[in-house]
Amino acid sequence: MTNFYFDWAASAPCDRQAAETFAETLSRYPGNPSALHRQGKEARALTEQCRRICASSLRIPPETVVFTSGGSESNNIVISSFLRKRQPIQILSSPVEHPSVINPLFELKNAGHTLDFLKMTDAGLFSTDDLKRKLSPSVALVCLIHTHNETGTVQPVAEAVRIIREFEKENNVRIHVHCDAVQSAGKAAPDWKESDVDSASLSAHKFGGPRGVGILYLKNPICPLYCGGGQERGLRPGTENLPGIAAMTTALRQREQNRTEETASALRIRTLFTTAFRKNRSIFLPFAETEEAEKSARFSPYLLMIALPGLPSEVTQRLLNDRGFSVSAGSACSSNAAANKQKMKNPFGFDRKTAESLLRLSWGHSTSIEEAKALIKALEEIIKENSILLRKEL
Amino acid sequence: MTNFYFDWAASAPCDRQAAETFAETLSRYPGNPSALHRQGKEARALTEQCRRICASSLRIPPETVVFTSGGSESNNIVISSFLRKRQPIQILSSPVEHPSVINPLFELKNAGHTLDFLKMTDAGLFSTDDLKRKLSPSVALVCLIHTHNETGTVQPVAEAVRIIREFEKENNVRIHVHCDAVQSAGKAAPDWKESDVDSASLSAHKFGGPRGVGILYLKNPICPLYCGGGQERGLRPGTENLPGIAAMTTALRQREQNRTEETASALRIRTLFTTAFRKNRSIFLPFAETEEAEKSARFSPYLLMIALPGLPSEVTQRLLNDRGFSVSAGSACSSNAAANKQKMKNPFGFDRKTAESLLRLSWGHSTSIEEAKALIKALEEIIKENSILLRKEL
Repeated sequence: MTNFYFDWAASAPCDRQAAETFAETLSRYPGNPSALHRQGKEARALTEQCRRICASSLRIPPETVVFTSGGSESNNIVISSFLRKRQPIQILSSPVEHPSVINPLFELKNAGHTLDFLKMTDAGLFSTDDLKRKLSPSVALVCLIHTHNETGTVQPVAEAVRIIREFEKENNVRIHVHCDAVQSAGKAAPDWKESDVDSASLSAHKFGGPRGVGILYLKNPICPLYCGGGQERGLRPGTENLPGIAAMTTALRQREQNRTEETASALRIRTLFTTAFRKNRSIFLPFAETEEAEKSARFSPYLLMIALPGLPSEVTQRLLNDRGFSVSAGSACSSNAAANKQKMKNPFGFDRKTAESLLRLSWGHSTSIEEAKALIKALEEIIKENSILLRKEL
Repeated sequence: MTNFYFDWAASAPCDRQAAETFAETLSRYPGNPSALHRQGKEARALTEQCRRICASSLRIPPETVVFTSGGSESNNIVISSFLRKRQPIQILSSPVEHPSVINPLFELKNAGHTLDFLKMTDAGLFSTDDLKRKLSPSVALVCLIHTHNETGTVQPVAEAVRIIREFEKENNVRIHVHCDAVQSAGKAAPDWKESDVDSASLSAHKFGGPRGVGILYLKNPICPLYCGGGQERGLRPGTENLPGIAAMTTALRQREQNRTEETASALRIRTLFTTAFRKNRSIFLPFAETEEAEKSARFSPYLLMIALPGLPSEVTQRLLNDRGFSVSAGSACSSNAAANKQKMKNPFGFDRKTAESLLRLSWGHSTSIEEAKALIKALEEIIKENSILLRKEL
């Protein structure tokens, strides 16, 4: 059966060029980058060349690029390092972070630190007004997601950082701002220098690289909890995954080089979806119900959250799956039970029927208009076949 | 220039079959194993199939196999979890652990726990007699390397565990025994069930798999510091690196299936080396100077440490490198300055001239007798050319 893959936000297919880079590096660079013989030095040189290319793509200094095993590890390295603080600190966070941010934050809370969450606006964004109210001289860490992994809303990180930096100056304090940019990197990535965060997480397999490799952008060194052979300037222990790093570099460069065309193509798909779904009374588009509502927030061109109130997510997901479409009922990462220990259900304020029927459609640079049209058709058929359930909602 | 690679202990070349498995999995399994659609379920099924195969190869239950990003992470997951202990504990360790064990142990010490090291015997093994003396009811963690990464000595882990289990029964206490088996896995791996450790670390790129993936054998669940989306039953956060896991599984199965032939082939090379080097008065073989001395310890068939007292390691390494031979002056992982914060220099008790001239020769299943003979010839030439430096030692 033909399969139409609309779950790129969970894991994107690996680019052909990136896969080729992986295979070539695997066979041509057997050396450990820490070894001092020829193969070691060749591996070291390629690692540093990749670091420069990634840094250039992201417009950040090479020394701020730390190669990690992925987004979850990048988030953990930064957040868990605050477990070293003996004096209690205050932490602020958006309430809609990924489990690999939320769960380490609860670790900090369990260790005796104070954890407060920002309010959300009706547009699905964390409130910068609430940030102003909650900032205090005891705040040492602020965690803010960039593109939200389920709603696709681009959060006002740059504005928040401006507020925080101003507060720092006025109060002569230092606040570490960490940004989970996993769903932004290689797509509508922020300008890190301009947004002035202290750290940010990227994951290769979300933008066409392989799994098991990512980047931690780190403006200034920190002291992580995991340690070992001193690789990555002591920030990430373990033999560098050079084939993965090289393949990620290829993918990141591809995304940067083709950004204009790829963004335009992704936007065409998003507009196709929103235009079709707004005409269908059974489909609800959180934060983007009308063209006007959509303008009060920014959205990733690669992601759309929809709800079919009355039809549970799992049912629609299964019906789509039977027709050859892969979509997610939410973030794949939180379908594991262990992630549900976070006690903040529904921070976006959805009503129950909406919350129970949410679907995340996500696509990528190689998704075609035809695939998108086929998904619209399939959803319309499913709605027709289940009109008894859905009609209740009208 | 032809290159003869004798640094497999730092990083082994990836097997052709393992590389093929990686490429095939990368293209055929785009789904996130946590996703609930067809591709997600296929990815989950393959992940669990790999877990069963790895478990069967290692003769351990599948639920004790945790897929990680490698040996350093596996070591950190276990050791750092003890940072949660509020009451001070006592820790025992061999003094010859890898930096990814030693450094997290010093983190525990810095957090207020007690860290004691076992004495070493003249045969280059940690002393089980000293273990008996140092065991006390406050000991909660014991870290023991299996095959030492620099000397190739196989440490008496099974005997140590028997002593510890007996002590546990007599004193009604629980002691976690962690074993760094990175240099043993896929080679002369211990029988985990028999040796009865609580956890052990394996790294794929040491036995023909790719970098960036490994296994943590964990008899009973622990509560790690890094957390996220609940993958690997909450023990290791982050999207599973399925291509890496599948490729590692292929490599591990290859090693297990061909163990007899591969071990015999590796032993032939080791015997070729020891026979030739024992005849050369400029070469010293720590713990294996004579056939008799060699019998008082067990050695990995894949590794030999030699010393050329009078000729610094870096010089010999460079001279060999110029002739096309890659060897290591020690563990690649500790050539990074950050690893040197461990305050235990020279726990094997080498005299200064020996310590400064150590070389680690390591090979693998595809290394040929001809390559080994060429290395012997090159070393003999280097010794001849530098006889003035070396003669002083005679």
